[in-house]
Amino acid sequence: EIVERLEGFFVPRVLAGRKVVLTAGPTFEAIDPVRGITNISSGKMGYALARACAQAGAEVVLVSGPVSLPVPAGVRRVTAGSALGMREQVFAALPGADVFIGVAAVADYRPLEVAEHKIKKSGETLEIALTPNPDILAEVAARQDAPFCVGFAAESRDLDAYAEGKRRRKGLPMLVGNLVSDGMGGDENTVVLYDDAGRHPLPRAPKAELAHGIVSHLARLLDGCRPQA
Amino acid sequence: EIVERLEGFFVPRVLAGRKVVLTAGPTFEAIDPVRGITNISSGKMGYALARACAQAGAEVVLVSGPVSLPVPAGVRRVTAGSALGMREQVFAALPGADVFIGVAAVADYRPLEVAEHKIKKSGETLEIALTPNPDILAEVAARQDAPFCVGFAAESRDLDAYAEGKRRRKGLPMLVGNLVSDGMGGDENTVVLYDDAGRHPLPRAPKAELAHGIVSHLARLLDGCRPQA
Repeated sequence: EIVERLEGFFVPRVLAGRKVVLTAGPTFEAIDPVRGITNISSGKMGYALARACAQAGAEVVLVSGPVSLPVPAGVRRVTAGSALGMREQVFAALPGADVFIGVAAVADYRPLEVAEHKIKKSGETLEIALTPNPDILAEVAARQDAPFCVGFAAESRDLDAYAEGKRRRKGLPMLVGNLVSDGMGGDENTVVLYDDAGRHPLPRAPKAELAHGIVSHLARLLDGCRPQA
Repeated sequence: EIVERLEGFFVPRVLAGRKVVLTAGPTFEAIDPVRGITNISSGKMGYALARACAQAGAEVVLVSGPVSLPVPAGVRRVTAGSALGMREQVFAALPGADVFIGVAAVADYRPLEVAEHKIKKSGETLEIALTPNPDILAEVAARQDAPFCVGFAAESRDLDAYAEGKRRRKGLPMLVGNLVSDGMGGDENTVVLYDDAGRHPLPRAPKAELAHGIVSHLARLLDGCRPQA
């Protein structure tokens, strides 16, 4: 933590006076008291971004799914399990926020019914019915008093089409796209930033370093400056 | 690691000359390149037991599902993702084993089909068809040359009935039962040991401490002595 705080001295305070709310990690959608549906998100990118935002001078609230990463210095973390729980925590943290960054890989679907007791194994095939979860980021972005919203898209192919499509559909000023195979779960990543001015690829780098690149791009957009292409 | 090795000096070497194969953690059954079904197992009990077995003098192979715990001193860890992958690693590690302990919360079911690309969200309800996974522990216990097999049962109710039923059905000399609400995912647990002589509750304790109690019971059974009731 001392190293983190020292490092922070050398980061430009481009988010000073701003409040940032982020989500990170996977969600866990219970099937029964033991089993559930989740995804391979490690939370590392979201935690790295929370840390970078704090180092850039922001007040940071990190709404985190179930991961076992340490809380970055200067960040207030609240934890959530399911997408519905995460949605609740986000809306509780939102008042006064200037920026919302949806990094979490929120489950798109949850089981329609949660079994009260552990489902016992049988030799039979089992069917699970899933129902769509609310889209937290789209909901935040659609508010009258919406903060500056940044989305994330992890795709297994056709990154540009899916990522830019997602950005426009949700009405986001900025979106960070990456290929699942490039970074999900790992320590490094290759990302492309999408905004109204086009696409801006960042060089492959450790997530901590990418986080500073994303924050600096975000701060320029937030200040109303044209980003450097 | 130095502390672990020092601690090891004070543990009776009741498994000296024995080879122990254990499984630990959850498995992850892919739905698509990002999503999957898993469970709330943290791997802590399995890792604690692997450590206790090594401290008791055993050669230990730990077949671990996806968790981010450090490898205990003196333990060889191999990693697995799905139940099918874990089964393969267990059978590769089994030759020469005196003891097999199935601590992992192996998924009972896996998706019948794994989507090659990320399933896109739609507004519709989704059905996932699941098919039963092989029962690794029952398969190991049913072998002609089966090692001494220890099972684990995490139940949400009726512990005695489910646990002892599981022990008899799979033909296990020993099974460790616990209630999900008591310990799964956490650092402490309350367990009951089941064997041919009956049920033996252990006092609630940190998992590291429980592990030594389980090893000592196991070693007595393995040596053909009647366990202290």
